[in-house]
Formats: sequence, C-alpha cells, structure tokens
Amino acid sequence: MSHQQVESLDVDRIRAAYPILEREFSGSQLVYLDNAATTHTPDPVVDAMSDYYRQYNSNVHRGIHHLSQEASIAYEEAHDRVADFIGADGREEVIFTKNTTESENLLAYAWGLAELGPGDEVVLTEMEHHASLVTWQQIAHRTGADVKYIAIDDDGRLDMDHAHECITDDTAIVSVVHVSNTLGTVNPVAELADIAHDHDAYIFVDGAQAVPTRPVDVQAIDADFYAFSGHKMAGPTGIGVLYGKRHLLEAMQPYLYGGGMIEKVTFEDSTWAELPWKFEPGTPPIAEAVGLEAAVDYLEEIGMERVQAHEERLAEYAYEQLAAEDDVDIYGPEPGPDRGGLVSFNLESVHAHDLASIMNDHAVAIRAGDHCTQPLHDKLGVAASARASFYVYNTREEVDKLVDAIDSARQLFA
Amino acid sequence: MSHQQVESLDVDRIRAAYPILEREFSGSQLVYLDNAATTHTPDPVVDAMSDYYRQYNSNVHRGIHHLSQEASIAYEEAHDRVADFIGADGREEVIFTKNTTESENLLAYAWGLAELGPGDEVVLTEMEHHASLVTWQQIAHRTGADVKYIAIDDDGRLDMDHAHECITDDTAIVSVVHVSNTLGTVNPVAELADIAHDHDAYIFVDGAQAVPTRPVDVQAIDADFYAFSGHKMAGPTGIGVLYGKRHLLEAMQPYLYGGGMIEKVTFEDSTWAELPWKFEPGTPPIAEAVGLEAAVDYLEEIGMERVQAHEERLAEYAYEQLAAEDDVDIYGPEPGPDRGGLVSFNLESVHAHDLASIMNDHAVAIRAGDHCTQPLHDKLGVAASARASFYVYNTREEVDKLVDAIDSARQLFA
Repeated sequence: MSHQQVESLDVDRIRAAYPILEREFSGSQLVYLDNAATTHTPDPVVDAMSDYYRQYNSNVHRGIHHLSQEASIAYEEAHDRVADFIGADGREEVIFTKNTTESENLLAYAWGLAELGPGDEVVLTEMEHHASLVTWQQIAHRTGADVKYIAIDDDGRLDMDHAHECITDDTAIVSVVHVSNTLGTVNPVAELADIAHDHDAYIFVDGAQAVPTRPVDVQAIDADFYAFSGHKMAGPTGIGVLYGKRHLLEAMQPYLYGGGMIEKVTFEDSTWAELPWKFEPGTPPIAEAVGLEAAVDYLEEIGMERVQAHEERLAEYAYEQLAAEDDVDIYGPEPGPDRGGLVSFNLESVHAHDLASIMNDHAVAIRAGDHCTQPLHDKLGVAASARASFYVYNTREEVDKLVDAIDSARQLFA
Repeated sequence: MSHQQVESLDVDRIRAAYPILEREFSGSQLVYLDNAATTHTPDPVVDAMSDYYRQYNSNVHRGIHHLSQEASIAYEEAHDRVADFIGADGREEVIFTKNTTESENLLAYAWGLAELGPGDEVVLTEMEHHASLVTWQQIAHRTGADVKYIAIDDDGRLDMDHAHECITDDTAIVSVVHVSNTLGTVNPVAELADIAHDHDAYIFVDGAQAVPTRPVDVQAIDADFYAFSGHKMAGPTGIGVLYGKRHLLEAMQPYLYGGGMIEKVTFEDSTWAELPWKFEPGTPPIAEAVGLEAAVDYLEEIGMERVQAHEERLAEYAYEQLAAEDDVDIYGPEPGPDRGGLVSFNLESVHAHDLASIMNDHAVAIRAGDHCTQPLHDKLGVAASARASFYVYNTREEVDKLVDAIDSARQLFA
C-alpha cells in the first residue's frame, strides 16, 4: 500500500492531546522536531499513569490484597498488550527493562558474556547507535570475540555484498539497527535475519526508531531478539522492552539478581523464576508499564500504517525542500521505502550546533550533534549534523518553519 | 530526641493528598499497611510528573533547544536534591538506576566482577534481602570469592561478636541492610562500617527501608556505597539510587554501555563520560527523577524526624497489641531505637497467606510471604510471615482495624 492510499491523520485533533505543543518561546509557538530523541506524551498516557498512582498503586508479584492484585494484573497485561503489538508469541517473550540501552546490555551480558569467546564474531553495521556499538564492542573486548562492521554505501544504505562477506560461520550474532536514527535508513532486517540464520548466527534488531513509527512484526522479520523504548512511542520514560524468542530466553541465565526473579533461595544458591520475570528483578516499572500499554492503545487507535505514512510524507517534504538548496548536505537515502521519518543534514556555512541554536531562537526544536553515532559521523567526515524528526502531531507548516529558520541562519552567517 | 518530643503529624491533612486511601472494598475503607512493599504517591508527586510530560518533556544530555535545556536542568538538579537529602558530596556521587536492586547489581558488576577473586570474602547478614543476597552470592560464584553471613540472635539483632569474627583482612566488602524489611531491625551500620574499614574492606548499605523512614546521612555512616528506591518513599516506580564515594565511583569501570555515558567512541574502542553520567546510559528515568525530587521535597516538608517518630509510634502500638495475644509470634526486636516501622508476625493457627486473605476481606492490606528473605525465614523456621508496615498516612485506628481483622481470622479458624 503506497502512502497515497493511506488516509491522512486529523492532526488538529491529535495535537489537542499534547498541551506541550502550545508552548511559546520568544513569542513563537514551539515547533518540535526532535522526536527521534523523544516523542511527547499525550494526555491519555499521562492520565493512565496518574490514574494508576491515584487508584491502584501497589507492588506487584501477586500480593494477596486487592490493590496488589489490580496492579499485578495491569502489569502482566501490559506484557500481553506489547507482545500482541509486535507480533510476539505471548508475555513470556516480552521483558520490561528501563530503556532500549538496557535491553541491549541485558542480551550482551546474559547471552554474550556467557557464550562469546575467541574466534567468535559479532557483526554490527557502521550506522549502529552507541547503545549497540559500544555494548558489543566492550563485551567483545572482555570475551576475546571480534567485531566486524558492515559498511554503508554513499547513499547511506547497507552494502549487502559486504554483509554477505561479513556474516560467516564464525558469526555468533548480527546486531543491526532497524531504522537508523541518523541516516533514516530502513534496513532489510528480514533479509539480514535470513543471512544470519543461514550461518547459524542469531540476529538482534535495535528497533528504537522503528516500533514507534511503523508496523513491526518480530516473527515476520524472524528476529531472535528485538528492542525498543517507551519514551520514543508516545509512552513514558523509564521503560524499554527486550523481545526474545522463548526458547532462547529460556536457555539464558539471568543477568540482574534480586527479588521477583527467583524461585528458591538458600544461603548457598538460588534457582530462577519463569519467563519473563526471570529477567525483571526488583520492583519493576509498574506505572511505566501502564503508560506503555496506554501508548500502544493510543497508537493502535491511530493505526501504525497511518503513523508511518504521515511521518514519511513529512520527511519526504522536508527532504525535497532541503535538497532544493545548494548549500545543504543531506545524509541517508532519498525518500522511498528505505527511508524513515527523519532527515539529518548540514548547512555548509554553519556548524550544526549554531544552526540548532538559531533554529531555537525561532522556537524550532531540532537536535544537533552526533546522535550517538560518532563512528558514523567520522565516516561521513563531519563532527555533527542537524536532525529534524517527525511524529504524529507534526505538520507541513512546521516543515516550512524549519526551512524558514534555516534561511534565517544562512542570512545571519552570510 | 525521643519520639515523645517530636511533634505529631497532621494525618488528616496528609491523607487528603492520597485519593487512593479513599477506596473501599466490600463496603470497608482501605487500610493500607503494605508500605514496606511500596508507599503511595501523594498528589504533589503525581502532579510534578504530569507537569513534566505536559510542559517540558524532552530528552536530556543538553540538547540545544529550550525544552531539552529545561529537562536537562531538572534532571541534573534532581541529582543535587537527592545528594543533599542523604548527605552526599554532590551530584557526582548520586547515580540514578531503575530500582534498589539494579543499584546493587551495578555495584556487583562494575566493582565486584572486576575486583573479586578466589580468597576474597563477601560478608552479608542472615537478614539480607534477595537483592543483596542473591546478587553477591551469584557474583561470588562467578569470581571464586566466598560468602559469609553474620548471624542474627534470637531477638533478630545482628550478633556483633560474630560480625567481628566474619569481617577479617580477607573481607573485600560488607553488604548489610540498614533496616530489615522482615525483622524491622535497625542495624548498627556506622559501627559495621568502622569494622569493615579497619580491615580495609568496603561497606555497601541497602537503605531501601531506611531512607524513606528516617534521616539518613551517608557520610555520618561512612558508607562507601548506599542504595534505595523512589517508590518506597512517596516517589515513583522506575527509579532507584546508588550512592558511592566519588573516588570509588571514579575508579570503577561502567557496567552498562550506550549513549550518554561515553566521551569518545570509535569503531575500535570507547572512553567514558564524567560522573554520574558514566553509569547512566541511554535515556534515563527523566519523569521519574522529577517525581523523586518532588518526593524529597514532600518528605522534607514533613520532616524526616517526624516521619520516623510517626511510624515508629504506630509500629510500637501494633507490636504491643500483637504481643498481648498468646497465639501471635512476632519476629525481630522489641520496640526501641533498633526497630523500625514495621511488624512481621504469624498467628499460630492460621497460615500467613490465609491470614492476609481474611484481612483483605476486611480491606486491610498487609503482605504475606517471605518478603524476599527466604533464607531468613528458613532460619526462623517458618515458610512465610504476615507483615504490617506503616507510613505517614497511617493511624492508630488503622492499627486497631488490623488487630480486629486478626481476631476475625482467629475466630474463623477456631
């Protein structure tokens, strides 16, 4: 289905649930284009968490009293809801963590530290976020494993010939970002999963930018592990998800120890609880799970195809506007099926930080920096880039304000 | 200062900020006595988080735009506020984690896994929570270190002669709970710190039950590391704290890797950010930090001496009522300076779970189980106990309802 066939969003109605978008700075209304860093949180999600605290706050793990029962059911059902949202096979495959970064570290510690050794290879890509890149790099250092990076081509797509070279029978795991938070590239994760599985390797997919912005089915991808965060998908801070195939999670030893993840404890040794609780020690992010479930409800009510179409239309519009300027360098693929809803760029005469600062004077909020992809920026030959990223509440008029603000910066530095 | 000299709380005024306390079950108003599992969250704390989401939600790490500046300042200032609350020497000594359990694992992974080895000893106590006990036990298994347990006496106090025997020049670290979540015992943590330091060992204190209920000064204790959670101190789920002395945290390598905790990343290696960010990878619990700061404000406005006096008065009253019954076994010390604000017990003729279930029929919410201290319960010779734990909004009338509900259970099983 092309975007043209997908019904447009009623953005005015959507915006009414985000009071933060009414804020003004120096007399201009906020234009928030930093959604790849974090999205805003609509009233139904904030209200769901407030309602939790005001009506049924309690610790979980099935205390006997009413409040604990209510909180436990809500916490468990949030797992079911998330499992359904990403096509997982039940709550046992959905572990709540504190953020995508912890999800990746959980895998690297619980599986990688135990299983990797000299001769094993971890295959990353040149566009990995630090959450993957630094984690696997450091775990590889500790275990004696090697790290390889699949190269990107000049358009910011993965070089699939190089992927075939990198992924071999020595590969233990492939770790790839689904949608690049810098280039906007949508990677062929199902194809990469096939290649990995052909070599009896696992594949981990960093879906931090993908789950919030498009329909994701982990079983269709055949991902062994998949991770994302609440705060980038209209949900709260303080919660992330690690999906894993049940038999793989069952075979893994826990990485964090404590209450709620044990079966039996003596002074000498311990045994572990069932999935997913084995990986969720201590008091979990209960209010945050309630908020994440509300965010899933919210996004499904809009429809993920429409979310995707809306932000890709905006990104395409922004790309075209920026590409029409001679002094703007855009990173990543042209608009199309392998570009998501963000655009990173540089104005040749202005440092990205100065650009973001001038944009901020116009109340246009973008991100400037390395976007947690320093090695990729080194490869691109720039220290930093500016990034505009879109979500369900953004409009074409806001893209126009972005372009106008760039024009102001150009004039200021001319 | 004795409790008699501390001004009483205006409990009616306090309760007005907790709409959850108005809930009724089967026609009876909720009597919530499960505060050691989690406390409720007053309106100012819930409102602070809602206000964050509705007014200045943004990712931190100093993005250039206004919202990110506001969120970054709030997030950083929350560290300052918590540092001040526990007597730490600045935000560098305060790491935000997801809960106390993660704080303990952070220490065990970042310090323990690197530093422990055969011949080293980790000294715990028989009353440690699983978060300490299982974590150190498992890290000891992985490193070849040994674990010793300081015994408790018949009153549920630490046997300090045995402590002197256990802590030797082979001791690498002593890990002790400040206030036992099962026995209510307040341990002599400053004295234990002195003993540990005399043997060049470190001391970690699990303050999950202490920080919410009494003034705590980590420098007065001379704790090397100290941990607690937001949700047990009128704050939100999804956030915990690890305090560490600056020079110790500086010497430690990070345990979780990702964005925000790095200084420089290449494809080959990485260097780390300054404290405390070195230990806070990925998008941190921003709304939760705002909520935790609001909880600190809330508790300081009441005054921690008054919080302590209030709940110890209630615990003493409950203890006396229960001790007057021939068929009730109470665990832990008699009321006094070394008992905190909770009482665990068993009714001889009724299993703790049945007791809690009958209490629940009267809308009295207590916890029944092993309270994440299975080995301690084994030592006490019981599989489970019932626990009533108090906080600022509880009243003597609620203790009377607890005792009445116990009487109902006794009659039902007679």
